[in-house]
Amino acid sequence: MTNNLLKGKKGLIFGALNENSIAWKVAERAVAEGAEIVLTNTAASIRMGTISELAEKCSTIVIPADATNVEDLENLIDKTMEHFGGKFDFILHSVGMSPNVRKGLTYDNLNYEYLAKTLDISAISFHKVIQVARHKDALNEWGSIVALSYIAAQRTLYGYNDMADAKALLESIARSFGYIYGRERHVRINTVSQSPTPTTAGGGVLGFNDLMEFSESMSPLGNASAEDCADYILSLFSDYTRKVTMQNLYHDGGFSSMGMSRRAMRTYEKGLRFDDVKENQYPFGHKAE
Amino acid sequence: MTNNLLKGKKGLIFGALNENSIAWKVAERAVAEGAEIVLTNTAASIRMGTISELAEKCSTIVIPADATNVEDLENLIDKTMEHFGGKFDFILHSVGMSPNVRKGLTYDNLNYEYLAKTLDISAISFHKVIQVARHKDALNEWGSIVALSYIAAQRTLYGYNDMADAKALLESIARSFGYIYGRERHVRINTVSQSPTPTTAGGGVLGFNDLMEFSESMSPLGNASAEDCADYILSLFSDYTRKVTMQNLYHDGGFSSMGMSRRAMRTYEKGLRFDDVKENQYPFGHKAE
Amino acid sequence: MTNNLLKGKKGLIFGALNENSIAWKVAERAVAEGAEIVLTNTAASIRMGTISELAEKCSTIVIPADATNVEDLENLIDKTMEHFGGKFDFILHSVGMSPNVRKGLTYDNLNYEYLAKTLDISAISFHKVIQVARHKDALNEWGSIVALSYIAAQRTLYGYNDMADAKALLESIARSFGYIYGRERHVRINTVSQSPTPTTAGGGVLGFNDLMEFSESMSPLGNASAEDCADYILSLFSDYTRKVTMQNLYHDGGFSSMGMSRRAMRTYEKGLRFDDVKENQYPFGHKAE
Amino acid sequence: MTNNLLKGKKGLIFGALNENSIAWKVAERAVAEGAEIVLTNTAASIRMGTISELAEKCSTIVIPADATNVEDLENLIDKTMEHFGGKFDFILHSVGMSPNVRKGLTYDNLNYEYLAKTLDISAISFHKVIQVARHKDALNEWGSIVALSYIAAQRTLYGYNDMADAKALLESIARSFGYIYGRERHVRINTVSQSPTPTTAGGGVLGFNDLMEFSESMSPLGNASAEDCADYILSLFSDYTRKVTMQNLYHDGGFSSMGMSRRAMRTYEKGLRFDDVKENQYPFGHKAE
Repeated sequence: MTNNLLKGKKGLIFGALNENSIAWKVAERAVAEGAEIVLTNTAASIRMGTISELAEKCSTIVIPADATNVEDLENLIDKTMEHFGGKFDFILHSVGMSPNVRKGLTYDNLNYEYLAKTLDISAISFHKVIQVARHKDALNEWGSIVALSYIAAQRTLYGYNDMADAKALLESIARSFGYIYGRERHVRINTVSQSPTPTTAGGGVLGFNDLMEFSESMSPLGNASAEDCADYILSLFSDYTRKVTMQNLYHDGGFSSMGMSRRAMRTYEKGLRFDDVKENQYPFGHKAE
Repeated sequence: MTNNLLKGKKGLIFGALNENSIAWKVAERAVAEGAEIVLTNTAASIRMGTISELAEKCSTIVIPADATNVEDLENLIDKTMEHFGGKFDFILHSVGMSPNVRKGLTYDNLNYEYLAKTLDISAISFHKVIQVARHKDALNEWGSIVALSYIAAQRTLYGYNDMADAKALLESIARSFGYIYGRERHVRINTVSQSPTPTTAGGGVLGFNDLMEFSESMSPLGNASAEDCADYILSLFSDYTRKVTMQNLYHDGGFSSMGMSRRAMRTYEKGLRFDDVKENQYPFGHKAE
Repeated sequence: MTNNLLKGKKGLIFGALNENSIAWKVAERAVAEGAEIVLTNTAASIRMGTISELAEKCSTIVIPADATNVEDLENLIDKTMEHFGGKFDFILHSVGMSPNVRKGLTYDNLNYEYLAKTLDISAISFHKVIQVARHKDALNEWGSIVALSYIAAQRTLYGYNDMADAKALLESIARSFGYIYGRERHVRINTVSQSPTPTTAGGGVLGFNDLMEFSESMSPLGNASAEDCADYILSLFSDYTRKVTMQNLYHDGGFSSMGMSRRAMRTYEKGLRFDDVKENQYPFGHKAE
Repeated sequence: MTNNLLKGKKGLIFGALNENSIAWKVAERAVAEGAEIVLTNTAASIRMGTISELAEKCSTIVIPADATNVEDLENLIDKTMEHFGGKFDFILHSVGMSPNVRKGLTYDNLNYEYLAKTLDISAISFHKVIQVARHKDALNEWGSIVALSYIAAQRTLYGYNDMADAKALLESIARSFGYIYGRERHVRINTVSQSPTPTTAGGGVLGFNDLMEFSESMSPLGNASAEDCADYILSLFSDYTRKVTMQNLYHDGGFSSMGMSRRAMRTYEKGLRFDDVKENQYPFGHKAE
């Protein structure tokens, strides 16, 4: 599917690490739909991943920047405008990381320096990107900014830890800045609350595969993939959605509006019966756990 | 626990069928907390259940009324005011029924006359009760009206059927009328979104017991019982909550704010593994379902 | 802007009355984007409005149907499938009317037969359309169904009356049926919560113009127009949004996420000072109201 | 009104500065309802305000603590348990401050060190209090923790600035920790989203008085006062609400469920007409702004 949906548009994409990244898919699809893009990531991620391949595919450049560092961001926006020869139209923020999760610290035992980093990397960086872009008047009228979120911002999922709080903060920033940037430059700002997605970032969460499966069986349309997500984000960068702003938009196959599906309930009911089965199955009393 | 929380208050309670009913618990507890009450239910429910026992315990009367019938309601409000010798302070609406659910018609095969009845009994009756009470100026200033709801109004649970739509309508009526009755008489109107509760009404829903179990294991405090619910409703009738209105209040042990608990996930994961186990366990090929 | 966004897609559009109708704009734009469409409305609306002009522009037919009448809908779906030579891809439901509003009955004085009609026309008709379409297996896999809603479903606006309750019911139906139709045919169902729009239907609401102005000054991007709305709905019919379902999507320039804008507050503050001004200005005691 | 609602309960109250403080009212009312309390605030606030008067009234002590400092909090919890001779039952967190607001920096020009402080003081401190209490197992089973929030967490109000983001983070922490503390000790955690209240903290927000007036005229029951808020919080500390957790509870006279009231609209409409009036009033063309 290509429709020149983004013909003539230019954008800056944060967070493509490798071909599993949602940002990677967005970059590929945006170019296929007629956009010009610039890529950015931290120096470490650039080394660790394969973003230079993506840049080649997309005939563009990668500008290293730490999204928590305002000077880096100023340089990034300057260079991006130089590359485009002026203002641009869209920004994707796909950035998030929790040192508490990485170090295995549970939510009732958080390290507060780590928490500050979680919030800075995963949420405040979004404010910084927007504030710098606005100071430099980098975006065209009716531009579009999107950040990636997750339903943990509304509902607690064990193991998601302080990333839940970071996502809540991220979504609030989208609203708060959406008001100001909208009022003054008609730039819209939204978050996309995406199904759990097996990216390098997402896969780090505890018990991720089983959560994916639960989410899949709860969602009438199944989980949204990274490719699906890219398509949806393109629609938000396009001119078809110019009056949508300050929203958190669920892109999740229906998960967010489900209380219980028949399919998930059947698996759950089997789990309830499993204990009885086990007793018969292990007659000498040893337990599986 | 008794604190004279409702000392001097008078109220009308819809929907006590038998001792499992939430309305039954509310009636008992309200009286224990110093309130005077009047009970009402349909003639059929009065015959089917044991409400006269409750009336005796509470030293009060039962006035039969069909909550979908405006004339019945007018008579009910008149008689209630007569009984109390004037205005009263609170109303509990605990009324709901779906002929589609009873007849086993699924949501994609609804009978529209039944749907109209579901909505009339479970939601519009709430409007009728309030409209009649207001026409007769039956409630004291700072009175409190509560109806019972369920999270199906926000999130789809397979099997809950058109009752989900009825609850959404009910909650909307609480808001719409809450504005008017609040503005003019300072009467507050709220809905309580209660855990699944093993009442005669609740128990009729398909797969109810397993849903109760899922809800229990998802909720950090466990499901709220009918007794818990009664206590909470008393707080909403009391003067401690006079500025709370037009709200849907979750009383559910935390269920509504959960995406996935560790405990529910463990049962779910067992269910995922159950299929493999079954294959070894039933070597002759017969299946449990 | 045309991008062949709906190339090869076919759809059925309810509710185009005249060129101010959102449904009218959707029809025009859908055809411009490569879709084939069929139009429908009640016989009365067909006579009253100018839908035949639209049909001519769009090179299609108008099939009369009362959306509250199941037989009419069965005939409509049959004829639509005949016209298209098979299944189709999208449905727009833009239908709503309140006899209580028309007759000037306030929310605390509703006529319950009228209320039943409000709900039947404005909400239950949506269920009927979907149930009939599903029985006839009329929609292709990954089809898309959209109904138009308004923020009155969540927040009370004086004068919007029982239409608020109808919209809450409508949005619930989208969720409830979205689960089933999604699970079984991957058809998605969403509602679009649109800015107040000066259509024939919208304009009937009390104090509509001032509400439009308030909404405009609260929304950082201003109110979304009927044209904007059409573009947004096209994105929801397209393949860019295939995993979005069971959602109520605000298309309102940011209004739904605003508590108070600087601009609206300035007007409000002038209103607060107006009383003093008036006293000096009209020294002979005549009043503006 | 006193009912011994908190008889036998013990609690710790953060944030009483002077007699306008919500925390002050909670302290007074809690004691009147039979509770024992301990008060705490920063050393600076203790000097600046009149908390020692309150301590005298309540026959208790003030333990100085900076709620952002974990060592201070450890000392505070130790001393509180010493004072009570064991575990206690409730905590009120009424703490918030934005250096960006104080310094007059707008949201599109935030100082990021200040933002980190806003979040640390107004939100992360809540996590720290709970984490320390839990480590020390300071709360009895079925204890209750409440923090004060504001609707800016959901809807943008110009001028509320980065406090909006802090409140969103605060509410998320209530959910995230509510799950864990509920699961393990049956302690419930909620936030109360209170009407704008003329406290020393609240009054610092730009245009506060006019916002109060708007909020008052939008809310069918009027704004909730500090006294009202105290009563509501008592109900949340009591045993009547033991199954309510992980919720953000609006205590606002209905404001959160209003889109537009008749009363607010009338003032707004006067503001719209004010411009015309001005033109006649200032015939020589000079403008008021």
